Amino acid sequence: MRNIGIIGGTGPQGKGLAHRFARAGHPVAIGSRSAERSAQTAQELNTRLGGGTSVRGTTNAGAAGSCDIAVLAVPFQGFAEVLRNLEADLADKIVICCVNPLGFDRQGAHGLYVPEGSAAEQAAAALGGSAVAAAFHNVSAVRLRDEPGPLDDTDILVAGDDPDAKSAAMELSAAVTGRTGIDAGALRNARVLEQLTAVLISVNKNYRVSAGIALSGLAADVRDRAGAA
Amino acid sequence: MRNIGIIGGTGPQGKGLAHRFARAGHPVAIGSRSAERSAQTAQELNTRLGGGTSVRGTTNAGAAGSCDIAVLAVPFQGFAEVLRNLEADLADKIVICCVNPLGFDRQGAHGLYVPEGSAAEQAAAALGGSAVAAAFHNVSAVRLRDEPGPLDDTDILVAGDDPDAKSAAMELSAAVTGRTGIDAGALRNARVLEQLTAVLISVNKNYRVSAGIALSGLAADVRDRAGAA
Repeated sequence: MRNIGIIGGTGPQGKGLAHRFARAGHPVAIGSRSAERSAQTAQELNTRLGGGTSVRGTTNAGAAGSCDIAVLAVPFQGFAEVLRNLEADLADKIVICCVNPLGFDRQGAHGLYVPEGSAAEQAAAALGGSAVAAAFHNVSAVRLRDEPGPLDDTDILVAGDDPDAKSAAMELSAAVTGRTGIDAGALRNARVLEQLTAVLISVNKNYRVSAGIALSGLAADVRDRAGAA
Repeated sequence: MRNIGIIGGTGPQGKGLAHRFARAGHPVAIGSRSAERSAQTAQELNTRLGGGTSVRGTTNAGAAGSCDIAVLAVPFQGFAEVLRNLEADLADKIVICCVNPLGFDRQGAHGLYVPEGSAAEQAAAALGGSAVAAAFHNVSAVRLRDEPGPLDDTDILVAGDDPDAKSAAMELSAAVTGRTGIDAGALRNARVLEQLTAVLISVNKNYRVSAGIALSGLAADVRDRAGAA
């Protein structure tokens, strides 16, 4: 079991992931700008999960400082400031980024330009002392919250250049889907995973669904393998 | 049945799609820079498919001029010239672009910068008189060629701004997967579909598979719907 800190843990994605990680037995610290709001979210999740789970609310800095693995689940707006504020707390830790840099206009959602290429690469550049991977961008917050069982029709694609961070994210994926995450190559591939969320938002709007991604053409034994990471 | 012209029909993706479209009963013209090579490919596909299929080899201009629906399956290198050469032949036609602007380096495949945003948007800009959609980027050429049945574990994501082109691509998807393609929003979303191929190439390398994409969270009735296109 790993101590997990969710930076931005009161938003839909952060809260949904916290729920899944806690249910799998990991101690989870919900971070937020507001310690009051994160305490509410923690209480809500503990109540929902029944006894034996340990979710606690704290600030983003508190979650970053106390965790083994931090999950960045904040909005892209203000992301640079979050990274600056948490750099020291996150030094030498594993950081998993699921931030989607998206804009919205009358054609729907679209990827925003990020000088570093992706939010995950921006995190890696800003957090020079942390081991960064990218994952959990494309899994629906609605399904994370509402479905009783693992999302076992869904694959978590994991991008990263650091083998430890990538392995940790791939293992943690099992708490969400019941199966190991997929090694989707170098951290720069995060730009595709992030922007893929814009495509899924289009699909959701067109079909009134909560779509996620799965890979086809993988045998069950391949999906369960740890990959070449 | 629609007359389909495959521009770049002797490459792996073009040939694989030609195979699937012809097997579904569509007359297919294989285009190539070399009419000799396309004649060989056409003969090979007709032999493989047995009687009753009509695949013929011709030049790219011949395929463009004679078709109702053109599928652009050429390499990105030289794409601008192909578009210039075929603009007149493709006027007033439906054009489906599956070109992937990818580069390769020691980290693997990666998306190339395209001033228009994507190869499909480049095609739409260059072919002002054509109705352009983007589809079939993420389906494995190996599986198109080798698997006996429809790739019914796979979704074809279709991006486009022209309703007729998008509908045509969504319908044509059934020849490949046995199910209607998915309306994945505006043509600009093609940039994600194109670059997603780079991620799949990483997955293929890591796991020695021929991965494709499916959507999770869609009920069967949703997948069979024509979407909001």
